[in-house]
Amino acid sequence: MAVSEPGVLELVRRGHEERVLRLLGEHGALSRKRLETLSGLSRSTLSDIVGALQARGAVVASTPEAGRRGPGRPAEVLTLNPKAGQTVGMDFGHQRVHVAVANAAQEVVGTATRGYARTTSWARRLELACALVDSLRADLGALQGVGVGVTGAGDARKQHAEAVVEHLAERWNVPVLIDNNTRLAALAEMLRGAGSGCSDVVYIRLSHGIGGGIVVGGRLLRGALGTAGEIGHIPVPDGPDARPCSCGGRGCLETYAAIPALLRDGGLPDLPAALAALEGGDPAVRAVFDRAGRALGMALAGVCATLSPERIIVAGEVAPAVLETAEAALHRHLPPALHHGLRLHPASLGDEVGALGALALVAHESPLLSGYPDPSRKDGS
Amino acid sequence: MAVSEPGVLELVRRGHEERVLRLLGEHGALSRKRLETLSGLSRSTLSDIVGALQARGAVVASTPEAGRRGPGRPAEVLTLNPKAGQTVGMDFGHQRVHVAVANAAQEVVGTATRGYARTTSWARRLELACALVDSLRADLGALQGVGVGVTGAGDARKQHAEAVVEHLAERWNVPVLIDNNTRLAALAEMLRGAGSGCSDVVYIRLSHGIGGGIVVGGRLLRGALGTAGEIGHIPVPDGPDARPCSCGGRGCLETYAAIPALLRDGGLPDLPAALAALEGGDPAVRAVFDRAGRALGMALAGVCATLSPERIIVAGEVAPAVLETAEAALHRHLPPALHHGLRLHPASLGDEVGALGALALVAHESPLLSGYPDPSRKDGS
Repeated sequence: MAVSEPGVLELVRRGHEERVLRLLGEHGALSRKRLETLSGLSRSTLSDIVGALQARGAVVASTPEAGRRGPGRPAEVLTLNPKAGQTVGMDFGHQRVHVAVANAAQEVVGTATRGYARTTSWARRLELACALVDSLRADLGALQGVGVGVTGAGDARKQHAEAVVEHLAERWNVPVLIDNNTRLAALAEMLRGAGSGCSDVVYIRLSHGIGGGIVVGGRLLRGALGTAGEIGHIPVPDGPDARPCSCGGRGCLETYAAIPALLRDGGLPDLPAALAALEGGDPAVRAVFDRAGRALGMALAGVCATLSPERIIVAGEVAPAVLETAEAALHRHLPPALHHGLRLHPASLGDEVGALGALALVAHESPLLSGYPDPSRKDGS
Repeated sequence: MAVSEPGVLELVRRGHEERVLRLLGEHGALSRKRLETLSGLSRSTLSDIVGALQARGAVVASTPEAGRRGPGRPAEVLTLNPKAGQTVGMDFGHQRVHVAVANAAQEVVGTATRGYARTTSWARRLELACALVDSLRADLGALQGVGVGVTGAGDARKQHAEAVVEHLAERWNVPVLIDNNTRLAALAEMLRGAGSGCSDVVYIRLSHGIGGGIVVGGRLLRGALGTAGEIGHIPVPDGPDARPCSCGGRGCLETYAAIPALLRDGGLPDLPAALAALEGGDPAVRAVFDRAGRALGMALAGVCATLSPERIIVAGEVAPAVLETAEAALHRHLPPALHHGLRLHPASLGDEVGALGALALVAHESPLLSGYPDPSRKDGS
């Protein structure tokens, strides 16, 4: 029997804590007796667990005056502490950091952003981000965790992830969860944006590169090897001579539909010039964007056949110029029984989407709740 | 508060039962005291739950003689009842049914198969399958459920699924779970075949059609709209003039790598002739199979970029003839950071794979354990 492993009982205990917090989150206020019934925990176990949660400020006991019936002491109820359980989200892009703070009810109580140079060190980026959080003057008295979005996937992300986690965990003494910021954007769009009400979402962002994030059953998909959601590197060659991609692969979607490819193919200086040419009806530029749209539609057809998502969300500066062509290509490549009439939805959140996703990472993806291993350890290792 | 909904307490109770069964399955034998600790359930709740499980014959109490220490009554231990909790699996192909029976330890105690004509009615197919199960003379005294694999996806599967579920549920008075038989094969290969030890598996079968199944985190992926895993319909055109597919889409993998496409492209009468021509070094036939292999590799590159699986398994009569080319194409289309050096593994189970997967559907995919809705209701509805 493997029950004597060290840590098993601690895991069991953390599981109980999560269960109690989840029940209080779902039901609002519960008496101890009701919590006992719903959790199935023994009175003594529950008493230990609730005591620890109260000591940490996560749970509070109160005595509602209304609805008091009969003589004797009114029944005490337990609730999540609305003033506790804050989360901090940070999204480190190539040239700016966004931070956001949420209260226990997952209401965003403040956001801020600050630019930096591509060459800015990680030590300095962290300093700027922490100063931004301080500037929001939010109550972080019962901080539950910090979520962090960073660029890159696999080993590229791993390089700075460890230092970031260590720095922030030391500063606040709370769990720090880290993931790719495009994945976090997918989570945020599902919870607060264009995927609201859905739990199976494919999110793709068309910008200087093409990234993606996939939510299955309300959870971020990371994949066994940590690189799930790299939709920009799905091969969609338009002929046998597949273009080489900067990733080292061939025929990737990114070689058709990312900004550098579009500018090169259209002989254009920058995206505003490209969009102006489209606006002016330039047929050569239209052809370049239409090819990108068809490539996107083909990649998404493959994703649909593989995943059967509920909603597809397309973000990034390029999105509006290719959405229509891509949707038509998606519907041309798949039969109705597989595309289910899915539309391509434009993303609805702004540049703060990554920081909002980082908040959600903490609130929704606690390793114990989600059944995933610690995301910071899935990082290509 | 939503706690007064009818059924909540019953769900809670079933959740407790599942937890107890899972702990006993993981640990083998447990004392009541140890089960109390690991489950976190109160003594009285646990006593209720164990009593009900004993009454149903799912759990037995025994007193091990060995290892007895000290005076007094030896400690009683609880185990899953090895004679109870049988499962029946059935796989209805186009021209034959396979059945399998497993005991509570998920050991297969018998399998059988029987052919029928494509035109055979569903009533007759069910009759044949039930007679086959009877012929195995297995003890079904504590049957836990019946898993059924059928061909087709979405609406095509839905047409007969309801009648099958109704017939079998009435005959045995147990839950009946139904899914696509290629998906079930994916589950079986993960548990007992080429995916053994993995929990994130992509399975693809190349035959008269091309089907697939995806397992993520040990669970079958069905997708929000029920059609996940249709890898045969990923578009992989080799030029702008994508071939129309029988599904109604264009450029699907199936138009290159399924048996009918290979025979047509090679001008060949049947697969044995095609394989003999390959064996004999016929360059034109080799070229046809290599194109199919490249198309497969491209489709799997897209699946890898999307899902980041742990293992890829390729089944079906066509598999051996395209595996090498497909693996090379997969590695050419993706960078190492995304293909992770993944190989293509040949499937290792025989034609009984679907029936084994149907057993696994019951044992591993109980709706309560998996968090999925009832799979029979995900059937394109």
